[in-house]
Amino acid sequence: MSAYPAKQHLARTAANLGAAAGVIYLRGGETLVHPDSDTEYDFHQDSNFFYLSGVREPGFAAAYDIGSGTAILFAPHVSADEAVWVGAPPSLDELRATYGFDQAHYAHDAAAVLAALRPATVFTLPHHRVDALADVLRAAAHDAERLLPAVHEARVFKDDAEIEIMRRANRISADAHVALMREIRAGASEAAVRGRFVGLVLAAGCSYEAYGSIAAGGRNAAVLHYTKNNQPLAAADLVLVDAGGSLDGYASDITRTWPVGPAFTPECRAIYQIVLDMQRAVLAACAPHRQWRDMHLLANRVAAEGLLRLGILRGDVDQIMDHHVVACFMPHGIGHLIGIDTHDVGGYPPGAARSDKPGLRYLRASREMLPRMAFTVEPGLYFVDAILADAKSDPALARFIDFDVVAAYRSVGGVRIEDNIVITESGHDNLTVCPKEIADLEAIRAAAYQ
Amino acid sequence: MSAYPAKQHLARTAANLGAAAGVIYLRGGETLVHPDSDTEYDFHQDSNFFYLSGVREPGFAAAYDIGSGTAILFAPHVSADEAVWVGAPPSLDELRATYGFDQAHYAHDAAAVLAALRPATVFTLPHHRVDALADVLRAAAHDAERLLPAVHEARVFKDDAEIEIMRRANRISADAHVALMREIRAGASEAAVRGRFVGLVLAAGCSYEAYGSIAAGGRNAAVLHYTKNNQPLAAADLVLVDAGGSLDGYASDITRTWPVGPAFTPECRAIYQIVLDMQRAVLAACAPHRQWRDMHLLANRVAAEGLLRLGILRGDVDQIMDHHVVACFMPHGIGHLIGIDTHDVGGYPPGAARSDKPGLRYLRASREMLPRMAFTVEPGLYFVDAILADAKSDPALARFIDFDVVAAYRSVGGVRIEDNIVITESGHDNLTVCPKEIADLEAIRAAAYQ
Ligand SMILES: [Mn+2]
Ligand SMILES: [Mn+2]
Repeated sequence: MSAYPAKQHLARTAANLGAAAGVIYLRGGETLVHPDSDTEYDFHQDSNFFYLSGVREPGFAAAYDIGSGTAILFAPHVSADEAVWVGAPPSLDELRATYGFDQAHYAHDAAAVLAALRPATVFTLPHHRVDALADVLRAAAHDAERLLPAVHEARVFKDDAEIEIMRRANRISADAHVALMREIRAGASEAAVRGRFVGLVLAAGCSYEAYGSIAAGGRNAAVLHYTKNNQPLAAADLVLVDAGGSLDGYASDITRTWPVGPAFTPECRAIYQIVLDMQRAVLAACAPHRQWRDMHLLANRVAAEGLLRLGILRGDVDQIMDHHVVACFMPHGIGHLIGIDTHDVGGYPPGAARSDKPGLRYLRASREMLPRMAFTVEPGLYFVDAILADAKSDPALARFIDFDVVAAYRSVGGVRIEDNIVITESGHDNLTVCPKEIADLEAIRAAAYQ
Repeated sequence: MSAYPAKQHLARTAANLGAAAGVIYLRGGETLVHPDSDTEYDFHQDSNFFYLSGVREPGFAAAYDIGSGTAILFAPHVSADEAVWVGAPPSLDELRATYGFDQAHYAHDAAAVLAALRPATVFTLPHHRVDALADVLRAAAHDAERLLPAVHEARVFKDDAEIEIMRRANRISADAHVALMREIRAGASEAAVRGRFVGLVLAAGCSYEAYGSIAAGGRNAAVLHYTKNNQPLAAADLVLVDAGGSLDGYASDITRTWPVGPAFTPECRAIYQIVLDMQRAVLAACAPHRQWRDMHLLANRVAAEGLLRLGILRGDVDQIMDHHVVACFMPHGIGHLIGIDTHDVGGYPPGAARSDKPGLRYLRASREMLPRMAFTVEPGLYFVDAILADAKSDPALARFIDFDVVAAYRSVGGVRIEDNIVITESGHDNLTVCPKEIADLEAIRAAAYQ
């Protein structure tokens, strides 16, 4: 495996910064310990630091001299006493080579190394501590504002190395989703679903779940941020599994919804088919120069047409769109940028405004789709009691909804189908290779009961 | 399942505090988010707050009026908007009943509720924020010192409810250890060992790993705080698995070491047998009124005798003990208190001094063993190059060690066997029911290859 392209990321970030000289200084994350305890939190590297260093261990720092293009790594010093417990550390030269930096020093030498560069300006991130640099900052201008948007904008465009890691993260996570479809039977706990998923992705090399997995049976899928994951699964229900592993620093974020029993009930099948149609329509439209916001609206229109066919909605599709009626069934956005973070940075570039309209309000990105951007495409339909009760009491919405028909579908709970894509020159590359057609899901589920 | 005995824990803590009046105020943990990201850390409740409330959700607070014995819960208010995403919250009365409190209020009413109690003194923990109480603290004395040792000392003595949770945590974790012994074969990655363990304990209802699991093959077991867990396992090696699930707020901490192949090599078997003898001797001695420190010394003596038999050590056993030679092979302590935290509080009560002697220096507890105390018993022997190199250059140690014989055992890496026990009136109760006899391990491992 080739080295992580940290130095290219530093150069790209410096270019976005638009400064001809100065030094970028970055602080990596430290180990977090629970209060009044020595139990450590699972270490997750600071995302911007990882992007610009490739380092996923605690205690590091880094610098980049913009004028000369010199990348400098600062490593924590491991004493002989500590080495007894944690093993012999790599040498500075090994670290330099591993991470593809030009220089490596110990962190306690950072101030001296930076002072010798005599920078006119030191650029830092607003959330990074700079206490180690007090002396340097007395002799230099300190800019803690411009670096953040520069690194965010760099992170929006994935290079080949990043795309390949994301493809592997998706491969591992999709395989784990398929294993669940093959193994889980009615009566199993949602905890067994989530546990099996986590076990499989860790075993395959992931560092941790990219986010808190959701394993929601039946009506629990109508709780959009369901965290309990501890109820038994019933044969007549769907189970919604939103789970992805984080591999080598990159998230995957995949949702599949499938019958707990061997086949879809008619109600579940009808709702599932609409969500699948929504995703197909959006995927077919994902290409350079389209607006991400339009993908959300397209999904809403396909949903409106489907819900009209089922009789859940009534009236005119354009009026339904104008009144944002579909947001009663899909309250969230169509998807988000994905990369090092599951909800990755850069969705609203400086100046882009967030809509206050239902549904659109929660859209996590609003910009032109361009090659090398990575998005999730995650349409869903849910029967959330609280939302439907509000709609019933709002005449502007209620006239479009047949609540008797809604009642017949309430037990479906919710359906979401989520893939991860990268925009290419000609369209998109779907990183998520995982069954989602009704016939394929039913074949796998039927086999699970044989 | 009966309610968690939070109110009894409040009463016991108040009794330790020795105050006849005043109010105890406690802040629960909040959700932690990664910097410049919306990714949440897996929530772990503040250990002292959990002990005194039973609550394992973020955003809570609690109070206890010492004079009247009134336990008051403060719950975060979930708005209608939030409820759409997280589901309908339980009512205050449901929360009160669930957690066995006398009153429940919303957290935004905490200051008013406490002010109405007109406390002369408010007791808080040093690491708990009290900003919500500014008005109350203007009219009361604020003691942020005495509560911490009072709750620590209460936590040292486990009640029946706690012991039963710990027994279940041990049952689940021991079953997962046995599953690994049955399934893992040479060539598998350490990541597969750890992943499978985590998957099984999560599926069985655990919230998370109680600590960072160690899955260390061969020489990696000589890295005491091994965290990589990503190397392939070789048939001639042992694998050391130190892993436990946290169930309903309580840790388990179990280590088993077994051959990757179907049987122990002669060298591995010899070292394993000594560690097993060390554990047997200590377990036989674990009883009320014995000193924990003596358990460490007993393990060292049994190790000295065993290493003398193998020819790794030479000379007189008493002199070996006087020179702390065994610390070259077991640098860590014999075990620690365990409960809500893996390394639980109260190991050194106020006034107890830590030894500066090799090995003993790292002993995490030094006190008289008493009924209802829970300990790990975790003897080990390791061949750590850095320690042995130091010993070789120290004539006071080197004369007791035959480094040629050491070289013959170096490939063993390390062995540890760890159980969790509770001291009883007559001896101890071993919560860890998991194979560790050589014949049992070899029978399971041989079956794994059939
Ligand atoms: Mn998503
Ligand atoms: Mn332990």
